[in-house]
Amino acid sequence: MQVWRVVDDLVCTRRVPGMSSASLRVLKGQKGEISVATDPVGVPPGKWVFTAAGTAARMAMPDRTVVTDLTICGIIDGWEEE
Amino acid sequence: MQVWRVVDDLVCTRRVPGMSSASLRVLKGQKGEISVATDPVGVPPGKWVFTAAGTAARMAMPDRTVVTDLTICGIIDGWEEE
Amino acid sequence: MQVWRVVDDLVCTRRVPGMSSASLRVLKGQKGEISVATDPVGVPPGKWVFTAAGTAARMAMPDRTVVTDLTICGIIDGWEEE
Amino acid sequence: MQVWRVVDDLVCTRRVPGMSSASLRVLKGQKGEISVATDPVGVPPGKWVFTAAGTAARMAMPDRTVVTDLTICGIIDGWEEE
Amino acid sequence: MQVWRVVDDLVCTRRVPGMSSASLRVLKGQKGEISVATDPVGVPPGKWVFTAAGTAARMAMPDRTVVTDLTICGIIDGWEEE
Repeated sequence: MQVWRVVDDLVCTRRVPGMSSASLRVLKGQKGEISVATDPVGVPPGKWVFTAAGTAARMAMPDRTVVTDLTICGIIDGWEEE
Repeated sequence: MQVWRVVDDLVCTRRVPGMSSASLRVLKGQKGEISVATDPVGVPPGKWVFTAAGTAARMAMPDRTVVTDLTICGIIDGWEEE
Repeated sequence: MQVWRVVDDLVCTRRVPGMSSASLRVLKGQKGEISVATDPVGVPPGKWVFTAAGTAARMAMPDRTVVTDLTICGIIDGWEEE
Repeated sequence: MQVWRVVDDLVCTRRVPGMSSASLRVLKGQKGEISVATDPVGVPPGKWVFTAAGTAARMAMPDRTVVTDLTICGIIDGWEEE
Repeated sequence: MQVWRVVDDLVCTRRVPGMSSASLRVLKGQKGEISVATDPVGVPPGKWVFTAAGTAARMAMPDRTVVTDLTICGIIDGWEEE
């Protein structure tokens, strides 16, 4: 599972039907790369989180039929930027 | 889910039967890498989008039997190139 | 789906039983990386192609039980090296 | 399967329900990249391990319904840092 | 499918039950990266091989319940280091 910092909410008014009710967050990785994840936890910007990819991303959602390949699984306590 | 800019349509006259009816787009990533995705949204060139990979790529298609490993899931509002 | 140029056939006399009847091609990616894919299309060396990975690689084969994680899905028309 | 060194336990008080009982470890890869894995073996910090990703990560857990995409599968004997 | 050179056997006395009977090899990739794969072919060190990842890694094993995400699928004839 990868480690990211939550940067912001993703604003996206036009999307496929399968993900219409999911909260989306913009994440920044350890090398500055940007990704987008579904968020069942409710994480505010600035927090460090870890994510599950692939099938596990859907298992981590309350509704497992949501179209996602990356989901925030937890907030990391006391993580320092490296 | 990854973030890309739509560059162009993909012109491909010879393809496997399983993807014959899908619209294909050429995408450019944050580091200039090129990829190809199926597009159920109908995105014009120049827009920033995010994609789902793997099984989620097929879940995002109206017809889930289409052969794809990357599908455009939504258009991002107000994205600035980084 | 990734973009590659077909370099050559792969010569491999000793392989696992699950892939014994599949045609294999050596591919070169945009950064010079080398990979191997199954080819249900019949692509000659020098052509640019795109591939599907994972489960989609098996869905793209006429026989879906072939052991593969990368399959050529189509020949790209008029692609220029970038 | 990838090779990592175990750095520490992951402290995470707020996480999704699907992974609540799993032990989590922080791993450092060969290029210094950081990742998080579930640990059914019980590995102390400093040891070199290898991991399985994707569906295999869940198959390696005693409880296969745990939400994970990376699981420690074994401790490597006598591994030298490269 | 990726291309690797077999470096050595992996010595690992403590591992998860799901992979207890599988032969493990240490592989070195084109950029010097190290990985670990299950080996149903029986490949001696020094040979160039190609591997299948993900579900295909398990399909390539005689026993498909073995916990693995990377399996050697064949020995490449006459491969030159690039």
